[in-house]
Amino acid sequence: MTRNPTACLLIIGNEVLSGRTQDANLQYVARRLGEIGIPLMEARVIPDIREIIVDTVNEVRAKFDHVFTTGGIGPTHDDITSECIAEAFGVPWEPHPEAWARMERYYASLNPPGDFNKARQRMATMPRGARLISNAISIAPGFSMGNVHVMAGVPRIMQAMFEELAQQLKGGVPIVSRTVHANGLAEGRIAEGLADIQARYPTLDIGSYPYYRATGNGVALVAKGTEEEAVAAAAQAIAAFIRASGFTPIEGEPE
Amino acid sequence: MTRNPTACLLIIGNEVLSGRTQDANLQYVARRLGEIGIPLMEARVIPDIREIIVDTVNEVRAKFDHVFTTGGIGPTHDDITSECIAEAFGVPWEPHPEAWARMERYYASLNPPGDFNKARQRMATMPRGARLISNAISIAPGFSMGNVHVMAGVPRIMQAMFEELAQQLKGGVPIVSRTVHANGLAEGRIAEGLADIQARYPTLDIGSYPYYRATGNGVALVAKGTEEEAVAAAAQAIAAFIRASGFTPIEGEPE
Repeated sequence: MTRNPTACLLIIGNEVLSGRTQDANLQYVARRLGEIGIPLMEARVIPDIREIIVDTVNEVRAKFDHVFTTGGIGPTHDDITSECIAEAFGVPWEPHPEAWARMERYYASLNPPGDFNKARQRMATMPRGARLISNAISIAPGFSMGNVHVMAGVPRIMQAMFEELAQQLKGGVPIVSRTVHANGLAEGRIAEGLADIQARYPTLDIGSYPYYRATGNGVALVAKGTEEEAVAAAAQAIAAFIRASGFTPIEGEPE
Repeated sequence: MTRNPTACLLIIGNEVLSGRTQDANLQYVARRLGEIGIPLMEARVIPDIREIIVDTVNEVRAKFDHVFTTGGIGPTHDDITSECIAEAFGVPWEPHPEAWARMERYYASLNPPGDFNKARQRMATMPRGARLISNAISIAPGFSMGNVHVMAGVPRIMQAMFEELAQQLKGGVPIVSRTVHANGLAEGRIAEGLADIQARYPTLDIGSYPYYRATGNGVALVAKGTEEEAVAAAAQAIAAFIRASGFTPIEGEPE
């Protein structure tokens, strides 16, 4: 069994750390990376501070096969991700010929023509060697530099960039999961039996997640991994164990 | 001006990294920490893997004044946060007399009596020296160990624990912010003038956040910091600048 490639997500932005903005990118990226077999191993939210961005990028790009960043590539003074990536890679931050030409044409084509001003020119300025990530929604592209993929923070632009990227990434074995719910069951009653099931399927990840709903409490038990047959067998073992505990397992139902 | 204490949040759980669960704790903790003047400087999502938890806790507890963790303190095999904290601090992981007695009494008081079994006993097992974080919702307490505050992952339990903690934390100067919206305005048009305003208020954090709504696009401009008068003055400068750019500033409106 070859190892799946790994990924880290850097969410760059003071607005997430202050609580002003609820991040909406982590869950999207996490799910999609699971589907293409590049599991997300870590996510980090960091502020718009140059040395923190540079140091963090250099730390995680050495540690994971892929690093995805969101945020900080717009035209304003607090958008410093791109120049920080150049610094992290030790290359010049300079006009990217293709991005520059594309954006210049775009603003000239508007009626009335838009101003391809200094602020907008910053969005066409990239680390030397950057590979563009085009997208259908925003004229300003993201880019990849080595194993670091730099995307916008606005969710619909981020998603368009991610999907463009996803076509080029060499994925691994998809992560599949099966969920079994048990209404009315408390985690503490089944913990020991569940640990036994985890021990029988050591290559899988068996998780237990209590839920509290107006219609009643319960627990969602998840078997997850790259081996589809083992995941199905573990889910069956979980369902049988719930039944033996006097409850009714509900398989595969969305929560 | 004394420096505010700093905070880091560790979100511990495979379910967030797989995208199964949308984190709902970061924004709550971030907002509340801003209010009590202990700004959140970093958040990290890490998996339920012993050595990663131990190493990360030791890294961030040295780096920040406070570390808050969420998740991994339930009764199941994948709940390993508590024993990892003991390992990080190099102390025994052992029954906590008060938590143990409290939980034992609780399960005995149920009708019919609940079983204070091995799994539940794990929730009363803590690093030696842990200080309990009681809460009104769950019988199982969180705990503080040095500057590390260990809380549940379930949002309403986490919030109850956080509020209990908040009464004891020595906060700093609250972070205040003012937001000015400009409908129809593109970031790229105002970026240069905004950078000038940032330069005039170097102790503040001026952020620019575009929004895309069914009713129209625009940009939200935020002045943030510990100096209330400077924040108000910067917000006025931003509003004046928007007006001078031919748009109508909308101050303080919730988004």
